[in-house]
Amino acid sequence: MARIVMKFGGTSMAGSERIRRVANIVRRQQAAGHEVAVVVSAMAGETDRLVNWCREANPLYDPAEYDVVVASGEQVTSGLLALTLQALGCQARSWLGWQMPIHTVEAHSKARIANIETDALLAAMAAGEIAVIPGFQGLSDDNRITTLGRGGSDTSAVAVAAAIGADRCDIYTDVDGVYTTDPRIVARAKKQEFVTYEEMLELASVGAKVLQTRSVSLAMKAGVRVQVLSSFVEDGVPADDLPGTMIVSDEEMAAIMESRGMEAQLVTGIAHDKNEARVVLTRVPDRPGAVSLIFGPLAEAGINVDMIIQNVGRDKGETDVTFTVPLADLARAQALLEDRRGSIGYNRIVVDAKIAKISVVGVGMRSHAGVAATMFQSLADRGINVEAISTSEIKISVLIDEDETELAVRVLHSAYGLDAED
Amino acid sequence: MARIVMKFGGTSMAGSERIRRVANIVRRQQAAGHEVAVVVSAMAGETDRLVNWCREANPLYDPAEYDVVVASGEQVTSGLLALTLQALGCQARSWLGWQMPIHTVEAHSKARIANIETDALLAAMAAGEIAVIPGFQGLSDDNRITTLGRGGSDTSAVAVAAAIGADRCDIYTDVDGVYTTDPRIVARAKKQEFVTYEEMLELASVGAKVLQTRSVSLAMKAGVRVQVLSSFVEDGVPADDLPGTMIVSDEEMAAIMESRGMEAQLVTGIAHDKNEARVVLTRVPDRPGAVSLIFGPLAEAGINVDMIIQNVGRDKGETDVTFTVPLADLARAQALLEDRRGSIGYNRIVVDAKIAKISVVGVGMRSHAGVAATMFQSLADRGINVEAISTSEIKISVLIDEDETELAVRVLHSAYGLDAED
Repeated sequence: MARIVMKFGGTSMAGSERIRRVANIVRRQQAAGHEVAVVVSAMAGETDRLVNWCREANPLYDPAEYDVVVASGEQVTSGLLALTLQALGCQARSWLGWQMPIHTVEAHSKARIANIETDALLAAMAAGEIAVIPGFQGLSDDNRITTLGRGGSDTSAVAVAAAIGADRCDIYTDVDGVYTTDPRIVARAKKQEFVTYEEMLELASVGAKVLQTRSVSLAMKAGVRVQVLSSFVEDGVPADDLPGTMIVSDEEMAAIMESRGMEAQLVTGIAHDKNEARVVLTRVPDRPGAVSLIFGPLAEAGINVDMIIQNVGRDKGETDVTFTVPLADLARAQALLEDRRGSIGYNRIVVDAKIAKISVVGVGMRSHAGVAATMFQSLADRGINVEAISTSEIKISVLIDEDETELAVRVLHSAYGLDAED
Repeated sequence: MARIVMKFGGTSMAGSERIRRVANIVRRQQAAGHEVAVVVSAMAGETDRLVNWCREANPLYDPAEYDVVVASGEQVTSGLLALTLQALGCQARSWLGWQMPIHTVEAHSKARIANIETDALLAAMAAGEIAVIPGFQGLSDDNRITTLGRGGSDTSAVAVAAAIGADRCDIYTDVDGVYTTDPRIVARAKKQEFVTYEEMLELASVGAKVLQTRSVSLAMKAGVRVQVLSSFVEDGVPADDLPGTMIVSDEEMAAIMESRGMEAQLVTGIAHDKNEARVVLTRVPDRPGAVSLIFGPLAEAGINVDMIIQNVGRDKGETDVTFTVPLADLARAQALLEDRRGSIGYNRIVVDAKIAKISVVGVGMRSHAGVAATMFQSLADRGINVEAISTSEIKISVLIDEDETELAVRVLHSAYGLDAED
């Protein structure tokens, strides 16, 4: 017997028929003798509908009231899943964020889970009741509904799994695992049996939208075993037989590889991200503090700056500063920087929304040289121009022309030997 | 300065544009110096949508989970109205049923309000904040969401008004007051300035769907002054100038009439109701307890029996029993009675769904004879056959053929001198 948290996303919860499919998957886990808690998202499209109403009501909306409105989406699906499970003969009940409660801190609409009271929940689960928990929501110190920000349901699931000491947190999505790259671009992309937390973090943060980044770092910190699998399976397949991707620690990965007599993969995946834009400020004075005049205000405005490259400029004492921001924040970032042109002291601002970020990720990079060289050579061979580079311990990212995204992904997927065999 | 509860129904809350209109009406009351709490329904159609999902999930749904799902509709509109009021520069916040809390007792999906904690609410209102309260919902003893049953938002508004000692509870609807009869049938129907609680109760229970019956009896019991008015007014009309209908006690009504040198009206209104069906059981044994064999099981099944008439049958020791049930429950009632034919011992069951109940209502009847005679004479003059009669202290109801509903209403409206002058 194991204690399992299962999480289902909005596509899996969209409508009565799909909720019934989810209920069947959940029931099979319980029938296998496991204690089960289920974390659910709102129906696909519902959160957008609610957010839209908030915007129409008040463009500068109060995040506390925004939370009251948008949290209702998960409230509905948790009640409906409990009802559907009951119809299948299971004992089930919903536990809303304020009922458990899931205590959160910090701002409304982007709250952080502080702690979860689990006594009543665990007692109910031990008595054979399936706990259905709306994702994305919690309770503030002053007794009001909070939400965790978009994609927060993955985080809820991992946090609940950590709080109740679950053996596993199964995240059911509309893909059936983590692939070496986007299968819509590379037909020969392979589903991975295992990836490490850190690889998953890098993949998530560079646009492989399987899991929400926060949930992965929480899982790593709390040591929660996370499995990614598909909720779109045929009825009747035993859930334990579903081949998903398990996210494991470095040590576990090393042990698995050793037991199979294999070495760690150099590269686990190739990710791409078209939702960034590049900003170049030319001829910024090269003096202490100059850079903080640029990035301080952007951070205050909540604009997430990713790659930062400083080039030596044409003239001494000046430098070009290049960085990327989310495409959705580009206009705001540009306005803000133009506003501060005087204090920053740059010459020109050049923006480019038609770029893509391509990243190769793999823990094996740590111990192997040559991964970067292979990347640059493969891209150069196909005439793809690299416009900026940034690296971490287990990732190399390059900016390229957006039109060359698919080509670059395919070239790199082959170059690192990731193509599946026939 | 007064303390006012304002309640807006689903039609008034259906969409951003209408919520903005509601917010403007609320703001005007606050601008006039009043402390304001607003009770809101879900957007029109939303509760039906949610109920439908519950039925699809589980036809025999668990009322506790049903409540989780359907209460979300009012949660959404309360958050949206708070946001919209803020956009107009008002301070406002939502107070969900579990936050105040509104303690309820008895069954889920048809809970009854036991008491309301108002300290925090009153402090916020005194500080100039508009309190927005989702109608229809409360909290059970075991910390779960409850709902009050359909139409429960009127009851929420009156209960909140009673709990906070409001000077007035204004119920905004899609009609602008209580008329002498349905203006769609009688063009000369007059809006009433005042009706008494008891008249309103009789009018509500016989199909004049302005206010929910429970809310009127609660208002009468708690002595809450209720005003019915329209939310569909032109922008810019001061809310205090809106001519609605005020619901008052017998004593207040008498005082008003006296101060105007007028006598109490004999008849206040003519109501009609096509949502009843007639059931006749023929040749029921005329012995003690026979009738309880009929109505006991119907009551247990939650079927509301209205008019009951016992006729002497053809043979001695037998009697025909006639009664009405809601049209929606007719099939269930019929099945139940056929099931118990042996124990009840009737001969035949005859049902008729094509009937209408016409009622004349007025406190003046108490002290005046002849109201019933006028009714029967007027109907007879037009050849309308009366199939059953029932009376209360301030109401006379007759059953007639459904096709004659409009004719009967017009005839009676004239007969009692209710037609407005040109």
